[in-house]
Amino acid sequence: MDTHERHFDRELANLKKKLLSMAAIAESMIDQAISELVTRDESVAEPIAQSEQQLNRLQVEIDEDVVKLLATRQPVAVDLRFILAATRINSELERIGDLVINITENVHILAQDAPLKPLIDIPRMAETARKMVRESLDAFVNSDAALAQSVIMTDDEVDALKDQVLRELLTYMMADPRTIERALALILIARHLERIADHATNIAQDVIYLIQGRDVRHPRTPKERPPEPPA
Amino acid sequence: MDTHERHFDRELANLKKKLLSMAAIAESMIDQAISELVTRDESVAEPIAQSEQQLNRLQVEIDEDVVKLLATRQPVAVDLRFILAATRINSELERIGDLVINITENVHILAQDAPLKPLIDIPRMAETARKMVRESLDAFVNSDAALAQSVIMTDDEVDALKDQVLRELLTYMMADPRTIERALALILIARHLERIADHATNIAQDVIYLIQGRDVRHPRTPKERPPEPPA
Repeated sequence: MDTHERHFDRELANLKKKLLSMAAIAESMIDQAISELVTRDESVAEPIAQSEQQLNRLQVEIDEDVVKLLATRQPVAVDLRFILAATRINSELERIGDLVINITENVHILAQDAPLKPLIDIPRMAETARKMVRESLDAFVNSDAALAQSVIMTDDEVDALKDQVLRELLTYMMADPRTIERALALILIARHLERIADHATNIAQDVIYLIQGRDVRHPRTPKERPPEPPA
Repeated sequence: MDTHERHFDRELANLKKKLLSMAAIAESMIDQAISELVTRDESVAEPIAQSEQQLNRLQVEIDEDVVKLLATRQPVAVDLRFILAATRINSELERIGDLVINITENVHILAQDAPLKPLIDIPRMAETARKMVRESLDAFVNSDAALAQSVIMTDDEVDALKDQVLRELLTYMMADPRTIERALALILIARHLERIADHATNIAQDVIYLIQGRDVRHPRTPKERPPEPPA
């Protein structure tokens, strides 16, 4: 292996490392936001906002790395696909950060009023979505197609939980109009979590495409677009 | 200009053409979905679904073109940035298609029941979002930074309209629980339109980055993340 190749390998490893950092930040943001929701302790709002800034900076940094890599190394075949996948994963992770911020905005609304109900399904959704983020990145760095496939399958669980949350909260709203604002905030939190799981699913699909050279982003099965629940 | 360069120019022009086709499809999907909402004529649901499939196919095609271009032409500098912007714009347009499908699912729910209220702000939001999609792509193909900037500014209008829609529908829900399901469907439609406008804004930011070599995706102004309205 010549020096040029060794440098290139180091650059690719560095790209992986930065994406793993982003994933770790995104994961911990999800945890903090849900703990803020459950404990009603708003002191984590500031650290979450700082983490999101960190994600933004990493995104720009990784995009710059990629442009440099493509221009100087002119990679082909699997290396090229890997680098293109990295840019997509980069932007998925950054969007997850945005969604956590949206969650905290709704958490803040909820903290102004008495708790509407004990929260069970939403923390479960959050835990599942967080795990999907972690596993989609593990699948990427270890080229693990089976793990990526399992992430894609887990997305159905999150969708089912979201439908359940929506139906339950609808009954609260119908029974007592004073619950409407809080119920709506919880519905939006559930939707943001569902979208976080969607982004993890996108990452997993990129991983499978990368490994198998097969585009699974637009399958012809009903999995493609789960029907919107009666909203 | 040698043959190699002429071929390359033709390939870049072809990439632009395909992205413009995607934008035209996305625009007409928005129009059809909102006409379905207003007229309650569900016969456009099928053509919209077909358009979305077309968008998916074009997305995969463009990504394949990009991989081929990067591998065979090994572009650098502005060409490289242009091609990377094309892949990002590609995925923004595909997401817009997904959002229109989400809108039609809520339109379908609304069509099952009597109209809740005359619709004014939502069609206005849709028209603004559609125009933003068109103009962000025009800005891209014509390297028009001023137009891209105006798209970014228009996003505030859409956000303001969405807040207005949300506040109004909240009063309906509070006043009469029988309106909750329909009001929620309209709130979700407004949110999907807002996200379509966000994707057009992302495209416009990519255009400015491309032209000025300046990353405007994470500005430090309050424009970065409009606060979530009291939901």
